[in-house]
Amino acid sequence: MKSYNTVAIIGVGLIGGAFGMALLKKGFTGRVIGIGRNEKRLKVAKRMGAITEYSTDYWILGEADLVFLATPVIHIESLLEGIGPYLKAGALLTDGGSTKEKIVSTAHKFLPPYVFFVGSHPVTGSEKSGVHFTKSDLFEGAVCAVTPDKTTDKKALGNVIKLWKALGSTVISMKPAVHDKLLASTSHLPHFVAAALTLSVVRKDKNLRALLGKGFKDTTRIAASNPEVWAQIALANKKNISNSLQEFLKQTKKLQSAVRTGNMRKLVRLLSEAKTVRESL
Amino acid sequence: MKSYNTVAIIGVGLIGGAFGMALLKKGFTGRVIGIGRNEKRLKVAKRMGAITEYSTDYWILGEADLVFLATPVIHIESLLEGIGPYLKAGALLTDGGSTKEKIVSTAHKFLPPYVFFVGSHPVTGSEKSGVHFTKSDLFEGAVCAVTPDKTTDKKALGNVIKLWKALGSTVISMKPAVHDKLLASTSHLPHFVAAALTLSVVRKDKNLRALLGKGFKDTTRIAASNPEVWAQIALANKKNISNSLQEFLKQTKKLQSAVRTGNMRKLVRLLSEAKTVRESL
Repeated sequence: MKSYNTVAIIGVGLIGGAFGMALLKKGFTGRVIGIGRNEKRLKVAKRMGAITEYSTDYWILGEADLVFLATPVIHIESLLEGIGPYLKAGALLTDGGSTKEKIVSTAHKFLPPYVFFVGSHPVTGSEKSGVHFTKSDLFEGAVCAVTPDKTTDKKALGNVIKLWKALGSTVISMKPAVHDKLLASTSHLPHFVAAALTLSVVRKDKNLRALLGKGFKDTTRIAASNPEVWAQIALANKKNISNSLQEFLKQTKKLQSAVRTGNMRKLVRLLSEAKTVRESL
Repeated sequence: MKSYNTVAIIGVGLIGGAFGMALLKKGFTGRVIGIGRNEKRLKVAKRMGAITEYSTDYWILGEADLVFLATPVIHIESLLEGIGPYLKAGALLTDGGSTKEKIVSTAHKFLPPYVFFVGSHPVTGSEKSGVHFTKSDLFEGAVCAVTPDKTTDKKALGNVIKLWKALGSTVISMKPAVHDKLLASTSHLPHFVAAALTLSVVRKDKNLRALLGKGFKDTTRIAASNPEVWAQIALANKKNISNSLQEFLKQTKKLQSAVRTGNMRKLVRLLSEAKTVRESL
């Protein structure tokens, strides 16, 4: 990490905050500048040791060798459209967005040719958002997907991989479109399923709360995630998520039909298949 | 608990085993007889301290003051049809089945008038089954539903409530039909949803495993439950589970339609509602 003097983090929340904290904890001795619109939150981030200084002014980006975009996905896209003029020649940019196809294509379309962008998605987080809930070891032991395409600079890709490895993550590389399709199934779909399950529970019985076991609680935990963040992810990856939901509806209907008709054999077969898959993961 | 000299547990698995272990750990000094068909497993249960003796012969039931039926739901029903002749006059029976309407009506229909039955459902467990995975504090801090109907003996009900409280559980009382409707929504539905979600995941990509985050793992954990047990529960409560799945499909389709049409406002509204409900639980 010694090749960077100044790191800028745009959006110092759960992911951005962890990035700064981890860098500083791992011995990074340069400047870590938090950039955002809310000065109060930036102050908290500084007090928590996530950044060494902060600014609400994008001009400071001109001093950064490494820029980490960690705002919600939709803002990453508009940032990429607008920050070009502020950036220093040779700067390396990466992001923490959980969808990649649109972000990577926006970066290639709008960023100046003298900076380098590599899409990243650290697969970690929490149903909580905000710097208050972050921690310096959020990326430790986690997977980080990097998503080069044919226009990605090889050296920049290598540097971003090194960076995530230095923060304790296992790095896997895949095309942006493959990433978004896989993530729709492994990460986005469960959020909408958990929300639908929560919405479908019988809510009006006084005994309901007492009867909610660990199974229900685990299965719906992520329904408490930030609605705006997930609505934005849904829009950024709507075709893949809609397809995943379609496949999920098909499987649910198969199970429902087996329950309704009392088809014990089919039920055992489907549940056994699910058990085998679940245990293989 | 001192009013019982001899306790019989039919089915010494996760729930039955925990029942015996908890009794003995709480200072019960009488006999705890494990009854089952598999002598090898009964030996394990004895070695683990879940029972003090065992038998594969139902005649031993004639010595029990308290009988706990802890086999899978479907076997509880056939046990209730058949064990009448073996039982001692005045014996108190309860069970650990997770559906109650059919069990309670079977008990009333088949048990002799000189024994007492009260349906119970300790709302606890694990995706693992078998005495190997049990522990003496399984009921500690858990909720146990008891399900009297108009024919239930008041004193027997009081004794079963005392028993579960002695094992550390919070007891709530409700009619069998209400129990089954609520449980379809809070416990059974999540199992079929978790199974459907597991079955719908994109399975053939080499990077799939690396991309499965905590959200997916939590949401599908119970898909690793015992298929036979859950197929039997589905049959024992099929109308309620099928209705719950219907309501769940409706909510999922609502979310899918909002995703597909990119209706940000509707998505935020639905996800916010889910978040509010989840956090209130």
